[in-house]
Amino acid sequence: MSKTAEDNLEQAIAAWIKAIGEEHVLFDDQIISLYSRNTLPKGTSPAAIVKPGSVDDVSSILKIAERQRIRVYPFSCGKNWGYGDACAVESGQVLIDLGRMNRILEVNTTLAYAVIEPGVTQQQLYEYLQKNQFPLWLDCTGAGPDASIVGNALERGFGHTPYGDHFLTSCGMEVVLADGRVLSTGFGHYRNSQSANVYKWGIGPYLDGLFTQSNLGVVTKLGIWLLPEPECFNAFFFTVSEEKDIHSVIEVLRPLKMQGILNSLVHVGNDLRIISSFYRYPWEETKGVVPLPDSIRKSFRKRSNFGAWNVSGGIFGTKKQVAYCRKRIKRATGNVARIQFIGNKKLSLSKKIVKIFNYTGKANGLAKMLRSLEELIKLMKGVPTRAFLFGTLWRAKKILNADSLDPLENNVGLMWLSPILPMTGTAALDLMEIVNPIFFQYKFEPLVTISLITERAMVAVISISFDKENSVETEKASQCYDTLFYALMNAGYNPYRTGIQSMNKLAYGSNIFWDVVNDIKIALDPHQIISKGRYQPINHE
Amino acid sequence: MSKTAEDNLEQAIAAWIKAIGEEHVLFDDQIISLYSRNTLPKGTSPAAIVKPGSVDDVSSILKIAERQRIRVYPFSCGKNWGYGDACAVESGQVLIDLGRMNRILEVNTTLAYAVIEPGVTQQQLYEYLQKNQFPLWLDCTGAGPDASIVGNALERGFGHTPYGDHFLTSCGMEVVLADGRVLSTGFGHYRNSQSANVYKWGIGPYLDGLFTQSNLGVVTKLGIWLLPEPECFNAFFFTVSEEKDIHSVIEVLRPLKMQGILNSLVHVGNDLRIISSFYRYPWEETKGVVPLPDSIRKSFRKRSNFGAWNVSGGIFGTKKQVAYCRKRIKRATGNVARIQFIGNKKLSLSKKIVKIFNYTGKANGLAKMLRSLEELIKLMKGVPTRAFLFGTLWRAKKILNADSLDPLENNVGLMWLSPILPMTGTAALDLMEIVNPIFFQYKFEPLVTISLITERAMVAVISISFDKENSVETEKASQCYDTLFYALMNAGYNPYRTGIQSMNKLAYGSNIFWDVVNDIKIALDPHQIISKGRYQPINHE
Repeated sequence: MSKTAEDNLEQAIAAWIKAIGEEHVLFDDQIISLYSRNTLPKGTSPAAIVKPGSVDDVSSILKIAERQRIRVYPFSCGKNWGYGDACAVESGQVLIDLGRMNRILEVNTTLAYAVIEPGVTQQQLYEYLQKNQFPLWLDCTGAGPDASIVGNALERGFGHTPYGDHFLTSCGMEVVLADGRVLSTGFGHYRNSQSANVYKWGIGPYLDGLFTQSNLGVVTKLGIWLLPEPECFNAFFFTVSEEKDIHSVIEVLRPLKMQGILNSLVHVGNDLRIISSFYRYPWEETKGVVPLPDSIRKSFRKRSNFGAWNVSGGIFGTKKQVAYCRKRIKRATGNVARIQFIGNKKLSLSKKIVKIFNYTGKANGLAKMLRSLEELIKLMKGVPTRAFLFGTLWRAKKILNADSLDPLENNVGLMWLSPILPMTGTAALDLMEIVNPIFFQYKFEPLVTISLITERAMVAVISISFDKENSVETEKASQCYDTLFYALMNAGYNPYRTGIQSMNKLAYGSNIFWDVVNDIKIALDPHQIISKGRYQPINHE
Repeated sequence: MSKTAEDNLEQAIAAWIKAIGEEHVLFDDQIISLYSRNTLPKGTSPAAIVKPGSVDDVSSILKIAERQRIRVYPFSCGKNWGYGDACAVESGQVLIDLGRMNRILEVNTTLAYAVIEPGVTQQQLYEYLQKNQFPLWLDCTGAGPDASIVGNALERGFGHTPYGDHFLTSCGMEVVLADGRVLSTGFGHYRNSQSANVYKWGIGPYLDGLFTQSNLGVVTKLGIWLLPEPECFNAFFFTVSEEKDIHSVIEVLRPLKMQGILNSLVHVGNDLRIISSFYRYPWEETKGVVPLPDSIRKSFRKRSNFGAWNVSGGIFGTKKQVAYCRKRIKRATGNVARIQFIGNKKLSLSKKIVKIFNYTGKANGLAKMLRSLEELIKLMKGVPTRAFLFGTLWRAKKILNADSLDPLENNVGLMWLSPILPMTGTAALDLMEIVNPIFFQYKFEPLVTISLITERAMVAVISISFDKENSVETEKASQCYDTLFYALMNAGYNPYRTGIQSMNKLAYGSNIFWDVVNDIKIALDPHQIISKGRYQPINHE
């Protein structure tokens, strides 16, 4: 850092302390190293951390940053697992930790929405709705109870209820711009507006999209729509036995999505992905060999009666609607698999599971599976759960902190690649033909889920799980990621979201788009104060 | 116009002629006056009209405009009735008539979408789907067969099927920027992308919103999702007798919308609005008095058995879904009104209508109503119809062109105000309390529809229909519009869309938002070449 840069930072820190209080401006080494961790091969280290408590604080922080030309990097709760967590794209930026801004500002039960700050976690809003007995459901991701709702919506994440597209079901933002101005989008900028959180587009250009997957402002408030509690819920499950069967799975499900019979995310996990949510890598059995030998993969699959692909989804509606949808889904999938449904009655769960998986495992295995399915059903019903973080431990050789599923506590190695596919069986097969040899080459297991997220599109979430304590494996993971990233881009399967290690790859094969993004960046943040490099692969000032 | 400006225009015209051909650059007086017409109190006159045939033409036109500092104003088909039609916000701009760009570039029957140019009309795409026997439905507006699909989507218009939100169901734009660069949004800018028209958000900032209701670019291509033809369709109708009954109508319908029982637009028209779609103003009976005396309003209503509010909507799905929704809707509305359904069988229509409206009118009245209902059902099923343009003639004293329903051929006077309301009975009552006295004051009839467009929001479309041949009435219409506009803004009912006569009012009661829009304008179009003033109430360069 140059002398001037050091002076600037020192002055900024002094000004921030004055503005928001000493206890909210952190820069000692221990804290810095805590905030430098992530699940990627490399983290980045912040110069300091500031913790605003209000929109005014954020505005002050940005004005000071702008004056001193200090780069800042806001995050909500920092649980962006597999994509960089709380880390900035570059070292030396100052993190704005929005976790203290965790107020639930409004819940409107008539119009079924909430207005929340970025620090509000999934668990917090869930408990608030429960405590007040509001008949409204949250839509959750599997990132765990402590993950931010706003953060996920801004990354355009997905959950499992009919309100699964979190950006789509958000309505009305408050955004602090680089110069400290506070912008309200939609109709929120109009005095007395009655519709700030019920009508998404407002009037004039629709700006909200600018503040998702971007570095153009700091979102300090968001309206989100909540799902009126459905009268009835059922989960369904089925498996198919061969990898190539993914083709018929997709072809059978697409018409059901198109007709609105299935109106929420359908999750299709391959055997490895499902195995990884029950077990860790069998280091002893394989004698340290990677990737997982086919014979052991098959024995895992057989032992637990997993399919090559394992399909699950929820049905939401009135009792009659759910009953009707069950019938239609059953009929449509009849030639492909034997489908099983789980209704509201928990009592029958264990019996059902034995039936579904024709379960032959050991008793403690059954208990594990029971818990896991219960957790999955919770997630489908918008109840936050930590259970799905277990899968991040797949390649870990030892568990550092057995009491925690926090990937950072366990120094987990994990990268996610998440390309969008058109909803065709051919695209799914094509994907696996790209993925399999690359994983084999770098000696990893392709843990793959394919989720049907809209009527027309699927997202494949491909995990590269690696042992971060092993530097050779970590390096291989990086190479595997890069090879896969470019292979998918070349095939036209572009990611819906990406990690900090590949923001600079986003201009690959692209034309004009990122230049325009940069033009807008220069207009709104001429000194590149906010999150430089985040979704900004091109940067000519 | 200054000498320099004149020279610049002359040079631009010469360059345009060279670029796109003499026959596509128009500026003779007769053509200018045709393009100066609209349904508002005042039109605006263009300096010339250019008609590109391709995206390259558009790019050339803009580069020339930029070089010569000529302001241009693109429109698709110019059927933006009641909001300014094809007219620019200011006189002296050069219209870019995109009507020649009318290619249907792709229809994907597996993934149910089309990619079209701005000149493609509702009728054209409808006929294309029919001719090829594609089992896909278009979503139409009532603006008639010749209206542009792209133009309506960019104005964020609404239709009547479950795909009624035209911006929401669009996916993937091609946009020419002021400097001539051609931007593809979503994933469309990536080489070989497989998902350009199936996944809306792409990666990085979502930019599409910038090019709706704006002047930031010229959209030359749009992907739109098509509704897979449902197995079954039913329409439903009911009426309530008192104006205050709107409260219970909304309160009864909201839960049905929230539960997804009703998944498309529900249309609620007041008596006057419905009367205006069957009859013209009874100038003789009223002896020229305005507004319509209460006694005549009542006799109209009684004669045709209209309610104070008249509700209609469609149910789309499988046979069983439709049957179930009918049952639920019938039960929910039981305490409010006697609901009637019309199924697929046309044969029973006349019988049904007699039953629904307990029809007692004359035989030719019945024929008229039959036709009108048939047209409404067509519209709900995505079939374009000219019929709803009849209502624009309400206050016309004489019909200039009896063979045409084109509002411009008949010099129709019409302005639309379209505020968004939260979906509550209280908001609907509140609206009428604002609307009624203002219309009475200026001696117009409040023709009002309230449409339930999402689960949480309604749009009221309020028509000011006036006799444009009468200058006093025209002036009063202007005053009525302005008074109503500000009254609605003060009450927090902001418009979802507006006309060229009120673009400059959009900053009223607003803070920061329009400044940010202007910042982006300067970044993308520093010389304000495109559509100056359109959705741009603030303009500090």
